[in-house]
Amino acid sequence: MKNTFGTSVSVTLFGESHGEYIGAVIDGLAPGIDIDEEYISSRLSLRRPSGNISTARREADEFRIVSGAFCGKTTGAPLCILIPNSDTHSFDYEAIKTVARPSHADFTAYEKYHGFADYRGGGHFSGRLTAALVAAGAIAQSALKKLGIAIGTHIKKCAGVSDRAFSDIDADVSALEYADFAVLDVCAGEKMKAAIEAARADGDSVGGVLECAALGVPAGVGEPWFDGVESALSRALFAIPAVKGVEFGAGFAVSDMRGSAANDEFFADGGKIYTKTNNNGGLLGGITTGMPIIFSCAIKPTPSISKKQDTVDFVKNENTTIKISGRHDPAIVHRARAVVDATAALVICDMLAQRYGTDYIGGAK
Amino acid sequence: MKNTFGTSVSVTLFGESHGEYIGAVIDGLAPGIDIDEEYISSRLSLRRPSGNISTARREADEFRIVSGAFCGKTTGAPLCILIPNSDTHSFDYEAIKTVARPSHADFTAYEKYHGFADYRGGGHFSGRLTAALVAAGAIAQSALKKLGIAIGTHIKKCAGVSDRAFSDIDADVSALEYADFAVLDVCAGEKMKAAIEAARADGDSVGGVLECAALGVPAGVGEPWFDGVESALSRALFAIPAVKGVEFGAGFAVSDMRGSAANDEFFADGGKIYTKTNNNGGLLGGITTGMPIIFSCAIKPTPSISKKQDTVDFVKNENTTIKISGRHDPAIVHRARAVVDATAALVICDMLAQRYGTDYIGGAK
Amino acid sequence: MKNTFGTSVSVTLFGESHGEYIGAVIDGLAPGIDIDEEYISSRLSLRRPSGNISTARREADEFRIVSGAFCGKTTGAPLCILIPNSDTHSFDYEAIKTVARPSHADFTAYEKYHGFADYRGGGHFSGRLTAALVAAGAIAQSALKKLGIAIGTHIKKCAGVSDRAFSDIDADVSALEYADFAVLDVCAGEKMKAAIEAARADGDSVGGVLECAALGVPAGVGEPWFDGVESALSRALFAIPAVKGVEFGAGFAVSDMRGSAANDEFFADGGKIYTKTNNNGGLLGGITTGMPIIFSCAIKPTPSISKKQDTVDFVKNENTTIKISGRHDPAIVHRARAVVDATAALVICDMLAQRYGTDYIGGAK
Amino acid sequence: MKNTFGTSVSVTLFGESHGEYIGAVIDGLAPGIDIDEEYISSRLSLRRPSGNISTARREADEFRIVSGAFCGKTTGAPLCILIPNSDTHSFDYEAIKTVARPSHADFTAYEKYHGFADYRGGGHFSGRLTAALVAAGAIAQSALKKLGIAIGTHIKKCAGVSDRAFSDIDADVSALEYADFAVLDVCAGEKMKAAIEAARADGDSVGGVLECAALGVPAGVGEPWFDGVESALSRALFAIPAVKGVEFGAGFAVSDMRGSAANDEFFADGGKIYTKTNNNGGLLGGITTGMPIIFSCAIKPTPSISKKQDTVDFVKNENTTIKISGRHDPAIVHRARAVVDATAALVICDMLAQRYGTDYIGGAK
Repeated sequence: MKNTFGTSVSVTLFGESHGEYIGAVIDGLAPGIDIDEEYISSRLSLRRPSGNISTARREADEFRIVSGAFCGKTTGAPLCILIPNSDTHSFDYEAIKTVARPSHADFTAYEKYHGFADYRGGGHFSGRLTAALVAAGAIAQSALKKLGIAIGTHIKKCAGVSDRAFSDIDADVSALEYADFAVLDVCAGEKMKAAIEAARADGDSVGGVLECAALGVPAGVGEPWFDGVESALSRALFAIPAVKGVEFGAGFAVSDMRGSAANDEFFADGGKIYTKTNNNGGLLGGITTGMPIIFSCAIKPTPSISKKQDTVDFVKNENTTIKISGRHDPAIVHRARAVVDATAALVICDMLAQRYGTDYIGGAK
Repeated sequence: MKNTFGTSVSVTLFGESHGEYIGAVIDGLAPGIDIDEEYISSRLSLRRPSGNISTARREADEFRIVSGAFCGKTTGAPLCILIPNSDTHSFDYEAIKTVARPSHADFTAYEKYHGFADYRGGGHFSGRLTAALVAAGAIAQSALKKLGIAIGTHIKKCAGVSDRAFSDIDADVSALEYADFAVLDVCAGEKMKAAIEAARADGDSVGGVLECAALGVPAGVGEPWFDGVESALSRALFAIPAVKGVEFGAGFAVSDMRGSAANDEFFADGGKIYTKTNNNGGLLGGITTGMPIIFSCAIKPTPSISKKQDTVDFVKNENTTIKISGRHDPAIVHRARAVVDATAALVICDMLAQRYGTDYIGGAK
Repeated sequence: MKNTFGTSVSVTLFGESHGEYIGAVIDGLAPGIDIDEEYISSRLSLRRPSGNISTARREADEFRIVSGAFCGKTTGAPLCILIPNSDTHSFDYEAIKTVARPSHADFTAYEKYHGFADYRGGGHFSGRLTAALVAAGAIAQSALKKLGIAIGTHIKKCAGVSDRAFSDIDADVSALEYADFAVLDVCAGEKMKAAIEAARADGDSVGGVLECAALGVPAGVGEPWFDGVESALSRALFAIPAVKGVEFGAGFAVSDMRGSAANDEFFADGGKIYTKTNNNGGLLGGITTGMPIIFSCAIKPTPSISKKQDTVDFVKNENTTIKISGRHDPAIVHRARAVVDATAALVICDMLAQRYGTDYIGGAK
Repeated sequence: MKNTFGTSVSVTLFGESHGEYIGAVIDGLAPGIDIDEEYISSRLSLRRPSGNISTARREADEFRIVSGAFCGKTTGAPLCILIPNSDTHSFDYEAIKTVARPSHADFTAYEKYHGFADYRGGGHFSGRLTAALVAAGAIAQSALKKLGIAIGTHIKKCAGVSDRAFSDIDADVSALEYADFAVLDVCAGEKMKAAIEAARADGDSVGGVLECAALGVPAGVGEPWFDGVESALSRALFAIPAVKGVEFGAGFAVSDMRGSAANDEFFADGGKIYTKTNNNGGLLGGITTGMPIIFSCAIKPTPSISKKQDTVDFVKNENTTIKISGRHDPAIVHRARAVVDATAALVICDMLAQRYGTDYIGGAK
């Protein structure tokens, strides 16, 4: 299941950067979920490049749902979303088809596919495919909202500039949903944008860290060991191009704490159980505690830069150099947050459907 | 497949801390792999608690392979390893069976299993089960060695004390295999032990970071998107109790770099292709580059501490306190490294078997 | 993975009878497989209704491969095939949307999807979706042919009229590939067609049995127990609408034999091992013997008939009657054979890729 | 997942005929299911050979549940059952270890495992492993009984002698549960036993057909296409050694009917919907109708017979003969019925848990 994740609710990705369509098949969605096409569009627009801090490529992202929907609702059958590729310039890529762009998958694709892969624009490895994830995730997000589950992601760090972190026990994601540049601290956001712009001016790029919170997931969801929520989320998150690290709760920082500081003490209040801190990110033993699920992803700087780089022609097996011309993003971290939201929503739908059955998420019961 | 991971080579874990046996079933191992019981024992002994820096619980770890082996070699049929539990004191746990130990899975297990779980010693959530992973992994490790693949893990950080990091292009794992306390810098190791001992004296605990390298994996292994090597490894690694973060190559640090610094430039030498740096940890697009696969895991401090902690009785839904008496580890990071080695070996065997078929790893061809 | 089968090579079906597209995503195809669009078309035309013995619905089956192919060959990335639906008359179905057509899935779909399913033409349960299976299978079939593996299916029985059976040790499938009405004995075929025509004239329908042979699959392919070739094939075959029985080799007839007659004696000849008979259908312990893989599928008579039938309105929970007007097939057995070929090819590709790795089937090595 | 089936509830088999233990790991069982060890024993005893019509091998089948159970109930964690092998005579097999017993898996095991398999008694391919399936299934059966779901299997045919068939709309399984030789018509049973005894006297063996009914499964369970109930059941049933055919409802006989006879007309009665006939075996579109699920399995005659047979030495690649001495069953059909019951119960548990969530089957809610 190379291009598929999920058990009860699964997603299969297909497509290439310069093919006719990219798309996704989402299987196992409960029947009766409202399909809000405007909401899907709004999520896609958050992922779409725009302005100086993004590539000049314009993607219209006109999606079409060609199965699994009827009269505006999910049917329960696999839902296939198609997104046409447009504004593709394949001639950009022809000249460098055997030259590995550093930090891209050109060389590994060649090793794996022996020269048969579609090399244009990264082909099947292109971040372009995450548009299909975003569209799929948007359906999951709107279904989860009806269950009282809210998901939000902000740019915790970009180009070394830090945003305010989420409160680990009371993360506020409400302002993020429609934000163009998702930060909690607007001033930090302005500094980030300036740093992105500076990198662009230098023909360079920057990375960052995204922090996501999922609120309202009930306690007791997830499985022990290899289908724990951390396992399921990290598997899907590391598929997102450029993600090089995933941490839950305090994450790497917790490894410097002592147990007395790291442990999340419990308390009961009004018939419900909480923790005072949430260094575990809402997860113990792979299973939800009912506290916010909080995790962060490290996003590497965009590999495509205008500077000359040393590299190889992997067919000739010779050293050469490359200077990547054309449009590319000086940063993708601000666009990737919509992908992280979507991925989180799809994984949580899957965990809930496994736990409570195939009808749980829909309007059927 | 809650307690199972892997596709061509899969591992299913079972057992509880205070049950009769813990164990694992490894399915899909190639026929003809040598089973070196001494090597398995040596790996188990590295995981086993010992000395002041570990729990006083003594685990003999006498394992038995009850299927899938014949005349000292794997048969190709599922191999079941049993490890008997001994030196278990279930009376320790009776008094606190409805009281959640902070940062343990007691509360989440209750929410999921409604009071039917075996609560003694963490039951199925106990780190004890990783002994079965280590035994399974030892078989994978010795098979991989014959293919020229070496795996090693060291304590990159413990209690805030840092070891030397691996060279990212030429990690030396040779000295680690039989090290009791796996560090690259012996002096750093001594400081770590002192810090662990200090935590123990305070009735507290510490965490750390493990860094693992896998050398010799050929280029072109792994799948795009959700079965990428990062996805497969992180899924398995986050199942290890106490792991709260996983990063590949430069990981979270890469998010602060510019692309010009982060990108790994390629060069050809002697008919083979390398990268000058390895910030991507040997993986691009989820697929191996042929460079060392390098990743780190954040390990939280041992949840069991002797200090009094606020918590709840989750049956009565009442606030209370807990003081965990009895034996427990002031740190598990040094023991967990054998678990990380094992997990990495099993995942890599799976990726290779998917890529090259079911006979590739064994002595059959 | 409700609408997906396969491990190394997997197929995901989507679409509804009266939606915009039906389609399939095939993942795990080796890179470098030739895509012969004419061959795909020819396979689709064998499944397509034609003449008096089929429904009057005309399906053009113009397929489009929108991903996973480049310059006429597979890339190794997931290949998505779309087939547009045309000539759909949804008004036929509106009147009976809450009335269960006997032997169709209308009632069970309602129980499962609570009224949200697309009811037009059977929706996602429509045999129409098998066109996507046929297209996917055609790619697998042409790849297998290059490996010397031939697959063929004939109508062993229809409306009680029997064709000659395959020789179990030397099945000849060569004449079947392009046959419009796939029988070994042309006279039997003419009798079958007459019986189908007679049923049509009566407003009734007939069923039959399809027998399939796969020649040239090497010995040693398949897995013990639940991934045996019988298990994998039957799982996929029973998904084909109207299949109610699957048997391998002598199948149900073997249960009447004594062991001395049923056992397939081995003999060696010219350095290769054969069996004298092939009552086991080329499979022992779930694993191929190298003899032809032979199996049969029972196909029930087309559920749609013009006669008045008793049934229920499942929303009103009331008894009623139904008389299904409009175009429908008096038999589907002759069309289903292309589906059986395709399914067998896809399953065999999967088994081979699991056994020999992801490159085995393609032109890459 | 070679030796594993199931999604929400899964079973992994391990062991060899002459190893230390055979066993199974059942994962995904709901917490709170009563473990009735006497019932498990009684099911095992039905599978166990006894009297003249079975092998003289005596299997005590003393099972031990070593994980996943606590205080007599399932915990929700994976449950591992071990059954020790006793009364094994490995010297019986040494002489013929490179000689293929006709209709056994010796040759295919050699082709797959290259001589590393444990050849004694069929090794991992031995029908002996079905004891672990029966034990696992017994837990599922007792859980299903509490939900009002009853499963029963009878010998529909043996050695050409037919039992009465189940009524397809009102199958009575109540008398079968503890029957030593499960037939509906005692006289037919006596004739079968005589035929088995006659075969034994001739050094030969016989086969048969088992018919199973599952009553009380609610409508709307199962998935379209590849996870339909037929697909899931047949995948598991074809793993049972000796099964060569599986049919649902009227099965192969339906292919001779016209649609007007084959179609199951619906009727409503007392607020519930039924079918007048049940030629579809309780399944339409892969999903349950609420009518009895009815299927039959063809069981081939026991391959081990005392008569001399032609065969090969597959290492020397030479023709030879074999005369299988020692104990063997003249028929296994009467013992296999416990295996069919167990398999059906496990598959139905899985389908229900997928549909209604992980707690549905247990006593937790």
